Amino acid sequence: MSPDFLAAAAAIVGAAQVQAGAAIEPRYLEPARYAPGRAAALLRPATTEEAAALLALCAEHRLRVVPQGAHTGLVRAATPVDAQRDVLLSTERLRETFELDLLDRTLRVSAGYRLGEINERLAEHGLMFPVDLSADPSVGGMLSHNTGGTRMLRYGDVRANTLGLSVALAEPRGQVLRLGRGLQKDNAALALQQLFIGASGSLGLITEAVLKLSPLPRQQAVALVAPASLAAVFPLYQRVMQELGSLVSAFEGISAAALDAGLSHGGERARWFGGALPDYALLIELSSDLPAERLDLNALLQELLESEFGERVVDAVLGADAAVWTLRHGISEGLRARGKVVGFDVSLPRRHFMAFREAGRAWLAAHFPQAELADFGHLGDGGMHFNLVWPKAAPALDEARLREGVYALLAQYGGSFSAEHGVGPQVQAAYRTHTAAELLALSGQLQHLLDPQGLLGLTRWGDN
Amino acid sequence: MSPDFLAAAAAIVGAAQVQAGAAIEPRYLEPARYAPGRAAALLRPATTEEAAALLALCAEHRLRVVPQGAHTGLVRAATPVDAQRDVLLSTERLRETFELDLLDRTLRVSAGYRLGEINERLAEHGLMFPVDLSADPSVGGMLSHNTGGTRMLRYGDVRANTLGLSVALAEPRGQVLRLGRGLQKDNAALALQQLFIGASGSLGLITEAVLKLSPLPRQQAVALVAPASLAAVFPLYQRVMQELGSLVSAFEGISAAALDAGLSHGGERARWFGGALPDYALLIELSSDLPAERLDLNALLQELLESEFGERVVDAVLGADAAVWTLRHGISEGLRARGKVVGFDVSLPRRHFMAFREAGRAWLAAHFPQAELADFGHLGDGGMHFNLVWPKAAPALDEARLREGVYALLAQYGGSFSAEHGVGPQVQAAYRTHTAAELLALSGQLQHLLDPQGLLGLTRWGDN
Repeated sequence: MSPDFLAAAAAIVGAAQVQAGAAIEPRYLEPARYAPGRAAALLRPATTEEAAALLALCAEHRLRVVPQGAHTGLVRAATPVDAQRDVLLSTERLRETFELDLLDRTLRVSAGYRLGEINERLAEHGLMFPVDLSADPSVGGMLSHNTGGTRMLRYGDVRANTLGLSVALAEPRGQVLRLGRGLQKDNAALALQQLFIGASGSLGLITEAVLKLSPLPRQQAVALVAPASLAAVFPLYQRVMQELGSLVSAFEGISAAALDAGLSHGGERARWFGGALPDYALLIELSSDLPAERLDLNALLQELLESEFGERVVDAVLGADAAVWTLRHGISEGLRARGKVVGFDVSLPRRHFMAFREAGRAWLAAHFPQAELADFGHLGDGGMHFNLVWPKAAPALDEARLREGVYALLAQYGGSFSAEHGVGPQVQAAYRTHTAAELLALSGQLQHLLDPQGLLGLTRWGDN
Repeated sequence: MSPDFLAAAAAIVGAAQVQAGAAIEPRYLEPARYAPGRAAALLRPATTEEAAALLALCAEHRLRVVPQGAHTGLVRAATPVDAQRDVLLSTERLRETFELDLLDRTLRVSAGYRLGEINERLAEHGLMFPVDLSADPSVGGMLSHNTGGTRMLRYGDVRANTLGLSVALAEPRGQVLRLGRGLQKDNAALALQQLFIGASGSLGLITEAVLKLSPLPRQQAVALVAPASLAAVFPLYQRVMQELGSLVSAFEGISAAALDAGLSHGGERARWFGGALPDYALLIELSSDLPAERLDLNALLQELLESEFGERVVDAVLGADAAVWTLRHGISEGLRARGKVVGFDVSLPRRHFMAFREAGRAWLAAHFPQAELADFGHLGDGGMHFNLVWPKAAPALDEARLREGVYALLAQYGGSFSAEHGVGPQVQAAYRTHTAAELLALSGQLQHLLDPQGLLGLTRWGDN
């Protein structure tokens, strides 16, 4: 790394915010699920202006910039790979703005804030940013991957809850776009901000956003339900939505293997279904801003489930909200303890959901018999983490062939290979294979328009 | 118009679907609020493929294509102006697809279907496309302007309820993009479809969409409320949202003049507030998919209003749902009967809403004293139709100066000059004045990328 570059970077952000080569703290290079990355330098701007100046500097030196938030992403979009050419730009110090508008229920916030701390600060006002995840990403990371999560069914994705963005561009050098006025509705321009949401840190660097907030619920009711069979799952879903749809805030599906992993990570096994785990479970959550005196969600949920017993439900555990969510959010961690986790973040038309699951299971049994499928996810919105564990004792995994096979099968059922994790090196091959040629062409032209030197982010949207 | 072109068009759609010059039926050239337009020809494709072929043909002949749905738009984006060069492409015959997926609650539908007929057909399944307007636009029109409406507060805009698009491009000639798989969530590509939503028929021609449906409410409760003062309006709004937020499906503000116009158009005057209209009224609607036995919305609303009586509310009319909405939706028509309506479709941060309204009123009194302000609109989401009537007897109106003044004032309060009507010739000057230079530049580059000859639509997104 040229001393000139490092000196110029230090002049922008201060020497303490520039790390080079072997001096880069390991945590920036070590993603949750994958092998460590490599970078020539790490830069940590504190303001939009510093970030824009650093982008311009990198462009001048023809260095590639890899933006990184909390490094919780699962498509490797934030882990640099080139020790000579990649500059890791951490957004964690982008914390200059935190402006809450209680009447508009909006928050203008810098990209470095994390979801958890935002919701902690909003709670005292009875508000929240309604994205619920097992991880604790930064604002910039959530926007770059258009995160879904367990409550998407009710509140929509990050895109639906974003009212404005500030974005620093690679080209023209140093330019910052302020997109949207942060209003609840505004159709006075092309929807440019939408392009940067879900673009995996390419196209532009998101430095600030205006988020739309929701009221914290005043009550919740949760049940972990054992359906009578897999065939009963969607009829049950439909029944719940028809009767109580506006109250449903989560509808998750959990395979026995995933349940088991979640319990291993931190749950009292005996508490659930008398210790005998079902083949498949549903986590159903109702929530409301009405108090229980007006509308008793526990009673509603109990009544509904009782009406289904014997037919579509064989067992259910009601209440114990926190314990259910601890179990649910412990699945990912629990799986990691068992071996290499290979994650497939897919979504499907609901009518094909179970058929794909069965076909996938059969395909794995035939081609990768050592793989232990432990799927779970946001069944209510058609999402499934079709995750499997490759045991530590098993022979080396041909992951490329595995991915190719699963994605090919998925395409037959009209599914998406990235429901809520976005596109990064992890699914770059799938993207190229399963995206129509004319979309690749146009996407590549757009990326070229915004970043002609190809210096921002690891995701390539074109066909080149 | 060249006979070659007309013959080639007839070969694609059939001679009955091609009209030239003076033979064009007047209804295609007469918008609701403005002077009639002019066109060289009218073409009416029935399929996406025909539409794409017609776009290619027009590009070959260097003719400009102006897409038109139900011609209910209010920014003149669908009214052609050039009798030599403009080809009006009506989407009303695009009706090849109507595919309802009851489990996914989605509708794949051609652009020519109208909102009203869609909701009529969905009602038997207990579903709706949750956009409520005074007009009855086509699917293509709603998407091209990202319509809001009275229920946006609850359900979001058209963008938030769109899961996929088919778009015919001007360039490459004849190409059709299929964007999105119609899934509830899918982040496997750049958000290209978002670019065409709200692009006013430019960039590409929307021929088909996958819409996300919502359940029809099982009950509604409506009140027309007279607040104690303008200062009481937002505290009242905040109170309603805090107590019953998840149930609120409309929160409209209506000035006395707009109320009066709505009543003139079709309402029994004596029925409201004993015939003495308040200076400002609020229309509050609650709705729920729960039946009244579970949760009595009328009782909730009544209780809430009574708790505010004397303090923030001086009078209220509860119930009479249909009559309230007839009154509300009659305002536009009622105003048209009084003179030339000059519409300003604005939105503001809620904290500046009333201040802008007062400043606007004062500015009008000083500069356009003949103008009769009759504002109304979606106060709950910060939207206001700051509409005024220019009386038939008044001297000629300098509309350009009027618009410039109102928009300049609006910008001081952080408002948007197009909340939900989109951008077209009507607000083209405002767009150019009130959009940052770097956004104009990038928007122009995008338009050039998708339509290098500038042949699609009347809106110019760049700075040229």
